[in-house]
Amino acid sequence: MTGGSAAALISRPANVRYLAGAAPRGAVLLLGRTTDVLVCGAPLSGDTAEGRPDEAVRIHVLPGPGGDPAVAAADLATAAGADTLAVEEQHMTVARHRALRSVARRLRLTDLGAAVEQLRVVKDEEEISCLRIAAEIADQALAELLESILVGRTERHLALELERRLVDHGADGPAFATSVATGPNAGRRAHRPTDRRVEEGDFLSVCLGAAYRGYRCEIGRTFVIGTTPADWQIELYDLVFAAQRAGREALAPGAAYRDVDHAARQVLDSAGHGEGLAPVTGHGVGLEIDEDPQLAPSSMGKLDACVPVTVEPGVHLPGRGGVRIDDTLVVRPEADGGPELLTITTKELLAL
Amino acid sequence: MTGGSAAALISRPANVRYLAGAAPRGAVLLLGRTTDVLVCGAPLSGDTAEGRPDEAVRIHVLPGPGGDPAVAAADLATAAGADTLAVEEQHMTVARHRALRSVARRLRLTDLGAAVEQLRVVKDEEEISCLRIAAEIADQALAELLESILVGRTERHLALELERRLVDHGADGPAFATSVATGPNAGRRAHRPTDRRVEEGDFLSVCLGAAYRGYRCEIGRTFVIGTTPADWQIELYDLVFAAQRAGREALAPGAAYRDVDHAARQVLDSAGHGEGLAPVTGHGVGLEIDEDPQLAPSSMGKLDACVPVTVEPGVHLPGRGGVRIDDTLVVRPEADGGPELLTITTKELLAL
Repeated sequence: MTGGSAAALISRPANVRYLAGAAPRGAVLLLGRTTDVLVCGAPLSGDTAEGRPDEAVRIHVLPGPGGDPAVAAADLATAAGADTLAVEEQHMTVARHRALRSVARRLRLTDLGAAVEQLRVVKDEEEISCLRIAAEIADQALAELLESILVGRTERHLALELERRLVDHGADGPAFATSVATGPNAGRRAHRPTDRRVEEGDFLSVCLGAAYRGYRCEIGRTFVIGTTPADWQIELYDLVFAAQRAGREALAPGAAYRDVDHAARQVLDSAGHGEGLAPVTGHGVGLEIDEDPQLAPSSMGKLDACVPVTVEPGVHLPGRGGVRIDDTLVVRPEADGGPELLTITTKELLAL
Repeated sequence: MTGGSAAALISRPANVRYLAGAAPRGAVLLLGRTTDVLVCGAPLSGDTAEGRPDEAVRIHVLPGPGGDPAVAAADLATAAGADTLAVEEQHMTVARHRALRSVARRLRLTDLGAAVEQLRVVKDEEEISCLRIAAEIADQALAELLESILVGRTERHLALELERRLVDHGADGPAFATSVATGPNAGRRAHRPTDRRVEEGDFLSVCLGAAYRGYRCEIGRTFVIGTTPADWQIELYDLVFAAQRAGREALAPGAAYRDVDHAARQVLDSAGHGEGLAPVTGHGVGLEIDEDPQLAPSSMGKLDACVPVTVEPGVHLPGRGGVRIDDTLVVRPEADGGPELLTITTKELLAL
């Protein structure tokens, strides 16, 4: 990444993990001309959730508590003869940047921008297999929930139950805060579970994901509670399903991000639901649950093969509830069978 | 907070919540000469976990997605005639600071430092009553766990079980990632639960806390699994208990942070456990689980009345396990009965 007498300092945890194989709390990674050094505030704990450093990475542990690994890394860079240090300005605080400038006066600080985030967009098959396992775990947790009694239980309990099941099936933990939304809350994006209880006739929308070896997937489904969905529920469900399918079908290497977004969005828009839509209809997933690319109207760029993304349109009708359907897929060329669906739970409208 | 033509921009979420009563995701607070404006990227969700804005705070919602509330706040400050804007350099990224400088050229950016964090150190009785309820919830969750069968269950399951019980009893959620450590893991600070199962003869150390209306408490206890603790276990437990009691008894208005730390630390140190000790033996709690003051050897400052802190010394013997005992207390003058213990679960060595 660096040439001549330049070095780079990686501080965003997901970027550290991507490049070093592990991201102990607070650690930073110094990318030098010849060696990469993981600078840690404390000895590695051996905790599997933080990963295992690649063998080529040198580990440097600060001698005592209270030091800033970034400052120590800048000292190491200076000692190795670097005259420029590229930092992640989108992640680093002003105070830390100031501290680096004052201790490493010989170093010119530049901006690395989102260079590492861009490297992370296209996944290799090892990364995709972690995502595949994460998706299987989420599918299993969801399947088990659907077999249990739901009426009378609160959103918060159902969410915790799902998170327990994710761990049961081998997840490091939930990929993000599990969302369970019932009745008038159903269909709200990233709804935080409340004490509302599931009632007959409700829409129930659930969004969850597992983290597996650091990789995070996402699945969202909407169900109806009771025997027969109402007409408006069937109609709304069919509409969101059609939008989500259109988004999935638009996934292909070379497809513009905004065109994938448009494919899903215009279905909802032309049915008169354009107003309250979320700013994105999908996004990349990987070491973070929300990473590049963003599938949004103003997003610039085109999909590549081996990019995992969510497709997650939804409609929420204030006071009535709504529908979200959310899958994680990997973009694949048509010759390979087109997009690979990782989250395989049925998208039929189930009455539970 | 501001006078003349100066304004301040608060971006650290706990500080926004403290001053505005609510901290919707991504929102910043502009403190002006006459009005305070909460600048939000999206309309308020009404979610109780994010709080409710004070009536005196004006709400400003960005017109569309993708805007930076901090940039919008800088525009508002300029429009209101401010010529200086103090920002939280310890929280703000270099990239955002650069964006502010480029859009609000007439504003001089200065550093607010940790001014709001310092305001948050001493709590009022309303804040303390939230902490008291949070502590009650954690005590209840822990009491229920102790009545259940533990042998054969994994650390991860026990941690999830505790988190479910916190929510059962009315917590917003866990105050931090619940730590359950068994056998050789016991006594490790902030141990992340693994798939290790509880065995007869183990030390079991548990650290958990509830968040209630945004306020976070912490309790840690260590137990022995089986009927009779081994001699080394009793000895180590008594030692850590003595250290923790010494720390608790040192809490008083006017006591230096470092002296409270020393009171606990020297008990462990003089027994030969000085080497592997954590850098702090306690810390403030409130809207964040780890806030000022830090009870550490090099910490400068003195306790005030109405400051809630943890006292949490521990010893971990590599390969064998260890003991941690952790309470949340509020500093009170002796005339009021001395430190108020919020987490009242027994600290006798229980064999479960």
